Amino acid sequence: MKTVDVDPGNTAYSILIDADSLSGFGEFVKERFGKIDGAVITDETVDRLYGGELADSLEAAGHDCGKLVVEPGEESKSPEAAKNLYRDLVHMELHRDSFILAFGGGVVGDLAGFVGSTFLRGIPVIQIPTTLLAQVDSSVGGKTAVDLPEGKNLVGTFYQPEAVFIDPVVLETLDPADVRSGLGEVLKYGLIWDEELFQKVNGNGDLFEDFNDQAELEGIISRCCEIKAEIVTEDERDRGIRQILNFGHTIGHGIEAGAGYGEMKHGEAVLWGMIGESWISARRGYLSQESLEEIVSALRGFALPPLPADLSEERLLKYVKLDKKVRRERINSVLLERIGGEAIVKEISESEVTAAWDYLTELGEG
Amino acid sequence: MKTVDVDPGNTAYSILIDADSLSGFGEFVKERFGKIDGAVITDETVDRLYGGELADSLEAAGHDCGKLVVEPGEESKSPEAAKNLYRDLVHMELHRDSFILAFGGGVVGDLAGFVGSTFLRGIPVIQIPTTLLAQVDSSVGGKTAVDLPEGKNLVGTFYQPEAVFIDPVVLETLDPADVRSGLGEVLKYGLIWDEELFQKVNGNGDLFEDFNDQAELEGIISRCCEIKAEIVTEDERDRGIRQILNFGHTIGHGIEAGAGYGEMKHGEAVLWGMIGESWISARRGYLSQESLEEIVSALRGFALPPLPADLSEERLLKYVKLDKKVRRERINSVLLERIGGEAIVKEISESEVTAAWDYLTELGEG
Repeated sequence: MKTVDVDPGNTAYSILIDADSLSGFGEFVKERFGKIDGAVITDETVDRLYGGELADSLEAAGHDCGKLVVEPGEESKSPEAAKNLYRDLVHMELHRDSFILAFGGGVVGDLAGFVGSTFLRGIPVIQIPTTLLAQVDSSVGGKTAVDLPEGKNLVGTFYQPEAVFIDPVVLETLDPADVRSGLGEVLKYGLIWDEELFQKVNGNGDLFEDFNDQAELEGIISRCCEIKAEIVTEDERDRGIRQILNFGHTIGHGIEAGAGYGEMKHGEAVLWGMIGESWISARRGYLSQESLEEIVSALRGFALPPLPADLSEERLLKYVKLDKKVRRERINSVLLERIGGEAIVKEISESEVTAAWDYLTELGEG
Repeated sequence: MKTVDVDPGNTAYSILIDADSLSGFGEFVKERFGKIDGAVITDETVDRLYGGELADSLEAAGHDCGKLVVEPGEESKSPEAAKNLYRDLVHMELHRDSFILAFGGGVVGDLAGFVGSTFLRGIPVIQIPTTLLAQVDSSVGGKTAVDLPEGKNLVGTFYQPEAVFIDPVVLETLDPADVRSGLGEVLKYGLIWDEELFQKVNGNGDLFEDFNDQAELEGIISRCCEIKAEIVTEDERDRGIRQILNFGHTIGHGIEAGAGYGEMKHGEAVLWGMIGESWISARRGYLSQESLEEIVSALRGFALPPLPADLSEERLLKYVKLDKKVRRERINSVLLERIGGEAIVKEISESEVTAAWDYLTELGEG
């Protein structure tokens, strides 16, 4: 069992990482908050796999929690879904001291976090992330969101949960693509912040196939949470250093959106994006050729999925620029000076993006 | 010109109260924030009366602001209206440093404040309240909201504006009922906090008919803002002393909702509610009979509208309890020990509510 404390200003909370602990969730909550009432918000997939275990645990500890189940997938992260949940919460007679338990991956965490942060102007939220990506990324930092037809995450809040409860063993039932997607983020923390973490994961791919070394799993996930907590604590409102968390995301986002959402997992696109942005870092002379080769070899080693077959250079560039345009930003990218540190935010040119894309497509064919 | 500084923790801002100053709004913004881009959110009524003056002022100072106009009335304070505004903001290419200018009464302030607090996870908002109620109440305190079919203000955020800009002269074009609605809140501040303010307004009803003493208007409005700022600074999250701002609202809310929303102005219902709750205060022996009579005489002096003709005791009680039930609160009410202070929150019984209602209906007939 590991604990990571997060304290971004006036709202400290803890992240508990404890393998095979889901059945103890109810007791965990009772110890910290007493008996609660509230609503579990989850999706159909997670509910089918783990909903019973969570409900039993809550009931055994004497909590009074209903359940609201949304469809899996990004489509549920909409203003309409939020409104339906608000109405359900009223009918369940939730009040200002009731809890939202966000039980699922990134979509559920973002949606339920947003609903919790705005229902009755904000009620307590506990995040129980069930994907690797959500465990190492979206459950830390207090960002909540819903999407608009015009783009992802355009509406949301900064809102810290009361606690984050992570059971790495629930990852056993993840799709391999979802595991890769989360590993992309784990490797990202290694590359921008902690070489030891990078090397540990790099040499230990099996860990995320058979999930049998619980202590090592807890260690890796808690280290990611620590790194993210350290970064977001310095920069809760996403104005400065937090931007280095976007390593791989400029090109990665172009690939993900250019392919059409749902075609490729977010973290898989970011894996490709990190290779592209490492290549730009090396081409500019920031990163050594040896380090670039080490990164490429490591990231390809995690069964990198093929690039989207019909994604043209023009289309990639369009989506890279579109995202920046909505936010009225230049094409900034995070570049590396070495593995494990010295990540810096720099404007990159369109021709650097397309040259990196040429490099990626060659890699993809090779 | 008067200025009230508000500092609820880490987000200080100023309220400027300046008669006949709307045409100088653009310069005010330029001095404080430089040239801005953004969107004015307003309603059709305010736009028709003052939209041109505001737009000219913004343009003359070199700002780049579009305009979004909603229909007047509570129906615009919906999640659907918020979604439409978000999409419009994307199409106007607003970014994280753009401003929302909330130009209107309480509905516009709540809606535009909510949209501003959640678009791109929060962009700067300036409130330009144009009704007396909004100037003395809803533009201070950082509460934003939209309604659900199940009830008003069930969704929202706590989000402080960058500034509040108040021109009391725009009140000239208000309906008398809207003036009364705002005066209800002004008298409330006097009753719960400041006897001098109560006496000043009590003896000066003409002021709010011909609006010709600008210094006195500025003085009264700024005093209300000061009182509210003082109270909410102590209690930003609405957990303690802020509850005394609900004086008149337990019974007032029952009258407003029982009559059907839109039948009676919020502040008018609160005027009646304050009489009812003062009567309960006197009946319990907290408030002297002389003070009760002074309050009743003062509040009736402001052309109190008739009580809703077909509102039964049962229906009143149902709505008093319904509001509390959604929020899972007992029937609490703010009671007075004297004019201008010692407001205390106490649970009241159903029979006290109905006895107060009997008193009000007799008054209404008398």
